[in-house]
Amino acid sequence: MSIIGSIFRYKIVIKDNFDELAEAIRMHVKVNKFCIISDDNVASLYLKQIKDKLNTVSNCIVVKCFKAGEKSKSLEVVSNIYNFLFENGVDKDCAIIALGGGVVGDVAGFVAATYKRGLKLIHIPTTFLSQVDSCIGGKNGVNFKNNKNMIGSFYHPILIYINPIVMEKLDYLQFSSGLAEVIKYALVADLQLYDFIKINKKVIKGRSIHLLKELIYKSCAIKIDMVKSDERDMGVRRLLNFGHTFGHAIEGVSKYGLNHGQSISIGMICAIYLSVKLGNIPKKYLYDTIRLLHYFELPTKFYGADSKDIFDMIINDKKNINGNINFIILKDVGQGVVIDDVSYFNVMRAIDFVTH
Amino acid sequence: MSIIGSIFRYKIVIKDNFDELAEAIRMHVKVNKFCIISDDNVASLYLKQIKDKLNTVSNCIVVKCFKAGEKSKSLEVVSNIYNFLFENGVDKDCAIIALGGGVVGDVAGFVAATYKRGLKLIHIPTTFLSQVDSCIGGKNGVNFKNNKNMIGSFYHPILIYINPIVMEKLDYLQFSSGLAEVIKYALVADLQLYDFIKINKKVIKGRSIHLLKELIYKSCAIKIDMVKSDERDMGVRRLLNFGHTFGHAIEGVSKYGLNHGQSISIGMICAIYLSVKLGNIPKKYLYDTIRLLHYFELPTKFYGADSKDIFDMIINDKKNINGNINFIILKDVGQGVVIDDVSYFNVMRAIDFVTH
Repeated sequence: MSIIGSIFRYKIVIKDNFDELAEAIRMHVKVNKFCIISDDNVASLYLKQIKDKLNTVSNCIVVKCFKAGEKSKSLEVVSNIYNFLFENGVDKDCAIIALGGGVVGDVAGFVAATYKRGLKLIHIPTTFLSQVDSCIGGKNGVNFKNNKNMIGSFYHPILIYINPIVMEKLDYLQFSSGLAEVIKYALVADLQLYDFIKINKKVIKGRSIHLLKELIYKSCAIKIDMVKSDERDMGVRRLLNFGHTFGHAIEGVSKYGLNHGQSISIGMICAIYLSVKLGNIPKKYLYDTIRLLHYFELPTKFYGADSKDIFDMIINDKKNINGNINFIILKDVGQGVVIDDVSYFNVMRAIDFVTH
Repeated sequence: MSIIGSIFRYKIVIKDNFDELAEAIRMHVKVNKFCIISDDNVASLYLKQIKDKLNTVSNCIVVKCFKAGEKSKSLEVVSNIYNFLFENGVDKDCAIIALGGGVVGDVAGFVAATYKRGLKLIHIPTTFLSQVDSCIGGKNGVNFKNNKNMIGSFYHPILIYINPIVMEKLDYLQFSSGLAEVIKYALVADLQLYDFIKINKKVIKGRSIHLLKELIYKSCAIKIDMVKSDERDMGVRRLLNFGHTFGHAIEGVSKYGLNHGQSISIGMICAIYLSVKLGNIPKKYLYDTIRLLHYFELPTKFYGADSKDIFDMIINDKKNINGNINFIILKDVGQGVVIDDVSYFNVMRAIDFVTH
């Protein structure tokens, strides 16, 4: 199964092993020198496999690993990698392979975008979240002074190789994080996908590779569709922030005690609550989604948090331009819409709904 | 006089004062918060003027200056600027104004490309060289471990405001550096421009603003034309490297005792010598160009240098992909061509011609 993303002609292969990696590279990337960038966790799981596959197309592979975790999203780590590339004579005829989850993709993507004004980039995402979300769309970045993704750019990979088998190695929190994003796609863009998830929830929770491939395929297709008509995040792509304006604030206020997926799960409930209050959708969908998220053990409440703290953090959210706060709400289930005239009162009510 | 560059819809205004700056920004950039990035030399000449003009469209202008010179093209300076932007709350609704020559354009361009995944960028180039060359095409970069432009990206400005009056403040070396690039455009792409320069050489050398505007206009038009069909430097844009493969090596071997324009001037003679040797153009054009460059006090010889040093540096030139050395030679005067099958023997003869 493969999707050909039409944006910048990059190719996405979804395959439940790594057997076609060499062939995909031969066909689409057309270089035979590689620098694999990964973190120590992922490297211990997949590096040998990947190198074995690459050996059939290359006798020039260098590997740079950094410590796993958000703290590695820094200019210091980027600078270390520049140094490594320089010392290993990495040149424009070499492709960067980002082997890992979101952090690896962000760091390696930024390096690929900026070393010698751009090296070819291949993503091999190894978490559900990176497979359905961060590997597509070209966003990369590192943190600066505790601000997420303050330094970064838009730079697209040439090839994305997605192997859903990696799901077997994920703990449940990582797995459900990916699911939260899949449910987001369904809510803002695909009613059929929403129903598909509800009908197949048991098999999905059992991590059936067949079903997960289907979810990845559908999610990638939705994201590619939005990104290709709005690369720079000015229009339709903003729908992908559904639940994220609330969610990022919740994640921050929790001091990262809640992970991304958990925070987005709660954030989506805020956004749906707003949609109900504004008369867009019947209240039953709010409870329907709460039940679905609960089934996947995703939280929908953030008891004990101070609503005002969350509200204040939203006001400072980087996504706000010209002082307007954009919220993505549902016009209908499967159809998101951007609005910028929500009253502070309604925003507070939406936050109160999840904190009480 | 203005050219509308069709690439990414950016606009180029060529005007012999700064009076239309505010209006051009109002029309094309549509933001009212600015961060001017400049160096201390340029700031002392133009900062007040530019701020006065901007005051009519903005009451939010911050300024960050760094020390003039190539040494400021570093990740340290970039990081300092990130810090400045962060501390001043610069956000996506703010445009970066690069006020200065090539170094300022490179550094500010890289910052604009990477801060919050891209801020709007305005170039106000203040040297002849940056007006006819570096402000167009989107290339930015900083040096890393003594390697020029090792870290950088492609990122296009929205507006370029070119005021040829700045020419009055340039020393002759800076002026002739720009001229060397203009002659390069003529040689690879525009026979009429070549003749125009020859016919008007006296008035050009006298820095007639009217003539300089004409040269800037024609040069920008040629570069935009090449860049728009080959943003990433894989095809026709490589013609812009005419004289540069030799020139960069000469600049390096001279340990920067020769400046960019001087080195390119000598490099172009190497490339024309090659073109003659390969039977593309009659020998008289070689001497014709030598006379023209001499008239503008640009060197065409690099006596005393070791040809082998220059040759070795060419082999290590970053522009070579897959081990082939690409040379841009003339198919005819006004028509460049990329070739990759020049014998080492002929390359050495071309170098020997300028070192003896």
